[in-house]
Amino acid sequence: MTTFSTRSAVLAALLSTTLASAGAIAQTPSAAASTTPAAKPFQSYSDIVAAAPADAWRTPDPQNIIYVEIAGGRVVIEVAPTVAPSHVANIRALIREQYFDGLPIKRAQDNYVVQWGTPDGQPPRAKKAAKSNLQPEFVRKLSRSEFGAFAFDRLPDIDGYAPQVGFAGGFHAGRDPKASEVWLAHCYGAVGVGRGNAIDSAAGEELYVVTGHAPRHLDKNVTLIGRVLQGMPLLSSLPRGTGPLGFYDKPSQFTHIKSIRVAADVAPPERTDLEVIRTDTPTFQRAVEALRNRGGDWFKVPAGHVELCNVPIAVRVPPVKAMK
Amino acid sequence: MTTFSTRSAVLAALLSTTLASAGAIAQTPSAAASTTPAAKPFQSYSDIVAAAPADAWRTPDPQNIIYVEIAGGRVVIEVAPTVAPSHVANIRALIREQYFDGLPIKRAQDNYVVQWGTPDGQPPRAKKAAKSNLQPEFVRKLSRSEFGAFAFDRLPDIDGYAPQVGFAGGFHAGRDPKASEVWLAHCYGAVGVGRGNAIDSAAGEELYVVTGHAPRHLDKNVTLIGRVLQGMPLLSSLPRGTGPLGFYDKPSQFTHIKSIRVAADVAPPERTDLEVIRTDTPTFQRAVEALRNRGGDWFKVPAGHVELCNVPIAVRVPPVKAMK
Repeated sequence: MTTFSTRSAVLAALLSTTLASAGAIAQTPSAAASTTPAAKPFQSYSDIVAAAPADAWRTPDPQNIIYVEIAGGRVVIEVAPTVAPSHVANIRALIREQYFDGLPIKRAQDNYVVQWGTPDGQPPRAKKAAKSNLQPEFVRKLSRSEFGAFAFDRLPDIDGYAPQVGFAGGFHAGRDPKASEVWLAHCYGAVGVGRGNAIDSAAGEELYVVTGHAPRHLDKNVTLIGRVLQGMPLLSSLPRGTGPLGFYDKPSQFTHIKSIRVAADVAPPERTDLEVIRTDTPTFQRAVEALRNRGGDWFKVPAGHVELCNVPIAVRVPPVKAMK
Repeated sequence: MTTFSTRSAVLAALLSTTLASAGAIAQTPSAAASTTPAAKPFQSYSDIVAAAPADAWRTPDPQNIIYVEIAGGRVVIEVAPTVAPSHVANIRALIREQYFDGLPIKRAQDNYVVQWGTPDGQPPRAKKAAKSNLQPEFVRKLSRSEFGAFAFDRLPDIDGYAPQVGFAGGFHAGRDPKASEVWLAHCYGAVGVGRGNAIDSAAGEELYVVTGHAPRHLDKNVTLIGRVLQGMPLLSSLPRGTGPLGFYDKPSQFTHIKSIRVAADVAPPERTDLEVIRTDTPTFQRAVEALRNRGGDWFKVPAGHVELCNVPIAVRVPPVKAMK
C-alpha cells in the first residue's frame, strides 16, 4: 500500500499542462521527503500561481468575454481585440444579431479541432450589421514604433515556428521583429475563424477551437481571435465525427449551440467571474522558470526549456467569489 | 452557396495532424484552381502517403502489438522493445497473466493523459512471473558503436527538448549523440509507464496514454513503451475526471478494460491487421517536406519547419484486407 500512496503523490507531479481552470489548479508534490532537508522546497508553477498576489491577476473586460452555451454547460472564451480588432468587432456584431444561436458544432476531429457554423449544404443565415467578408488578420502588422510599444512578454527559449514567442495581451503569441508583426499561436484552446481558399472569405461565422496538439503550422494562415478560459472538456470530449476531417456524418450527431453571448450583455448574476494570471509580472516569470526546470521529488531531469504551448495561462475564480 | 462549397473544400486543407488512422487519411486539397496551371500540383503528406509504394509500409510484429479492449472497441498499441526491452517484456508477461483484465481507466485529465491500473486504495493484484519493480528505461543508453548503428531517421529542424529528434524504430524519438542516448518522445498517442518518486517503483502495471498537447518535459523522466496506432478517439473522448489531476471521483465513472492481449496470442481472424508507414524511406522524407512547407490552395505562408509531434506516422489497413 505504501507503494501506491507514494504513487498517488507522484502522479500528482505529472503536473497538468491543461488550461488551469478555476478550482482545478493541480496539487503540489509534497516536499516532505526531500533528501536535503535544509534545501528550499521546489515551488512548482501551481505553487507559485496559488500564492500569487492579487495584483498578479487581471479581470478581463466583459466586452472581451464570450459565453458559448451548450447542453453540457458554458464555454468561456476571451477574445483579443488588440490582435484581431476587426474580426472581434464583427463576431460581437454576429453575437448581438443572435447569428450563432441554434447552429451546430458540426465537426470534432481527433487531436485537432471542433468547429461550429452553418451545416454544409445549408445557406448561411441572413445578417444585419455584421459583415460576411473581412480582410484577414492572420498577423497584426505594426509600424516600427507601434511594434516597440506593443506589450509582449517573451519566453527565453527557441521556437521552430516563430522568431520569438511569448504572450501578447495575455495570449500565447509569436512575433517577428524584422517584419514588425505579432500573431496569436495555435495552442490548445485557441479559437480561430474558419475560412475558404480566399484570405478574405470569412468573417467569423465559422469558429473552431484547437482540441489537440498545437497545429502551429496554421499560425499566420488563419485569423485567431482568442482562447478558451474555461470549459475546454465540454468541447474536447465530444464524440469524434466519423466523416472526413471529423465532420459529423449525420445531423443527429450535432451538438447544438443554445446561444453565444458577450458577457457585458449578460446580467451580472448570470456571469462567470474569472481572473486570468498576468503574463507581465515577476511572479509569472518565476512560474515559467518552474516549468523550464521542473523539480520536486518526481522529476529527475529538468528540460531546461519550455515550449510556448506547454505554458498554461492560469485562470481562477476570484477569491471573494470563491468564498461565497 | 459558392462561398460555402469553397469553404468546405478548404476546411479540408486544415489538414489533420492526428494519427492518420486507416480509412481516415485526410482528403487532399484540390489543385484545380491553381493560378499557375503549368505548375506541378502540390502534393500533401496525405497525397504522398496515399500513393506510397508497398515497400514504404511495414507490418508490425504481432508480438509487438497489444489490443486494449474496452466497451467502445479496440485500441491498438505498438510497443518498442528496441527502446524499452525490459518494460516491454514485463508488460507482455503481465498481459499473459491477464493482470489488466477488469482494471479501470481511472483517470482522464483534459489535455494530458488517460491512465489505467489498480484504483487507489486497493492493493495491487498478485503476479506470477511478472515483476513489480524494474530499472528505468527513461532512455536507451548505448555504447558509441551501438549508437552509431541504432537506426534513427532524423528530422532536419530544431527542437527545444532534445539535441536531435526524429524516429527510432518508427516511433517519435529524441537522441543525444554526446551521451549516446535514444528515447521515445511524449507525442499525442504515446504510451508510458506510471511510476512513483523512486525511478524503479513501477514495472508497467499502470499505463498512461498522452491525449493532449505533447508534454515533452516528461521525456527522459518516465519510461515510454510505444504508441497507439488505432483507436485514440476511444480514449481521448472519454469524459474527463473531475477529481484532482483528472482522476475519477467515483468508481461508477470508470471505463473498465475487458482485456489486454498480445496480438500474437489472438487467433488471426480476430486480429486487426495494420501497416505503418516506414520512416526510413525517400517517400517519408518527401511527406515530411510537405509538412514543413505546406502548399496547395489554402496555405499562404509555409512554416519552413515541422515540430516532431506534428509529424503523423500514417497507419493503414493493408490494401488486400481493405478490399475484402
